[in-house]
Amino acid sequence: MRARPTGRRPGNPDTRESILAAARTAFAERGFDAASIRVIATAAGVDPALVHHYFGTKEELFRATVDIPVDPAELLSGVLAGGADGVGERLVRTFLGVWDSPAGTAAVAVLRSAVNNEWSARLLREFLVTQVLRRVLDRLDLDPAELPLRGALVGTQLAGLAMMRYVIRLEPVASADPETLVGAIGPTVQRYLTGELTA
Amino acid sequence: MRARPTGRRPGNPDTRESILAAARTAFAERGFDAASIRVIATAAGVDPALVHHYFGTKEELFRATVDIPVDPAELLSGVLAGGADGVGERLVRTFLGVWDSPAGTAAVAVLRSAVNNEWSARLLREFLVTQVLRRVLDRLDLDPAELPLRGALVGTQLAGLAMMRYVIRLEPVASADPETLVGAIGPTVQRYLTGELTA
Repeated sequence: MRARPTGRRPGNPDTRESILAAARTAFAERGFDAASIRVIATAAGVDPALVHHYFGTKEELFRATVDIPVDPAELLSGVLAGGADGVGERLVRTFLGVWDSPAGTAAVAVLRSAVNNEWSARLLREFLVTQVLRRVLDRLDLDPAELPLRGALVGTQLAGLAMMRYVIRLEPVASADPETLVGAIGPTVQRYLTGELTA
Repeated sequence: MRARPTGRRPGNPDTRESILAAARTAFAERGFDAASIRVIATAAGVDPALVHHYFGTKEELFRATVDIPVDPAELLSGVLAGGADGVGERLVRTFLGVWDSPAGTAAVAVLRSAVNNEWSARLLREFLVTQVLRRVLDRLDLDPAELPLRGALVGTQLAGLAMMRYVIRLEPVASADPETLVGAIGPTVQRYLTGELTA
């Protein structure tokens, strides 16, 4: 996990804000894949090079719009390194690691905002699908037709874990040792990723 | 599922509101078990008989405070009638039946409110534990020491299903046929209720 840089960025804060606003609109309306840096730059009235200068890659710009202070690519490389075997447990362990860390406060804010606001919900959905679920599923050699359902099922379990542990604070999940939850919920995520989907 | 009566109730609407406010405080602060009709009536400055007159049983009063328009006891009797076998699938099917019905709109409002407000989160937590999870778990002949964790794990999966299907609207879960979800998620709930909790 990598904290967001806290140092001041060069340039005009209004320009930064315009780029972020244009990016939010583009990602929510067109989706991550179709929204291009060029379109975002045009909407913000700046040169595409300036977007890269302020925010780096398109992935990094997207993370800034969703206000998620961790890099999923980096986190998921560890989850995926071990292959399909045990990937469910590793995903739950990594997920809990982020939410139990200081970044968890930002994550709770993102979840709250998505529940309250259709715009934020769209951004979170795009984020989950393109930055998290797709990265995991593309590496697992599965039937492509099943990938969307598998990914969304993983989403239901992880979102519910976050809700109950960090927002609703339902005991004993709220204060359980992370490894207890990894042992109980890891097999669920594993089945959603690689197992049979019908009873 | 039973719709809330929509007819006018007798008596003063201010009195009704005072009782509801006192009940919310009592259920959130003391929990469902410890909050008594007598304490609630005293706090509202009315006779306990009037509380029963307006709201019926303590369970019914609690449902009115959480604004949940279905009767869990009634819904769960069908879920539990078949015993432990297949209870996971029946619970998911019943859950989806409520959320897919007109009552689902109220349920989304309850979930949103719990995410935004610590007070509502406490009430929802108490509701889940005492009106839903406990009713299911008490009938399944399980090790009592494991019941709280089993119940909370079921809570994570069902809350996440509701979040993704009805609030965040993550596809294909958002528009999946209910039986597809019953087939995929039922076994998870079954394992949380009656299976091994460690990998």
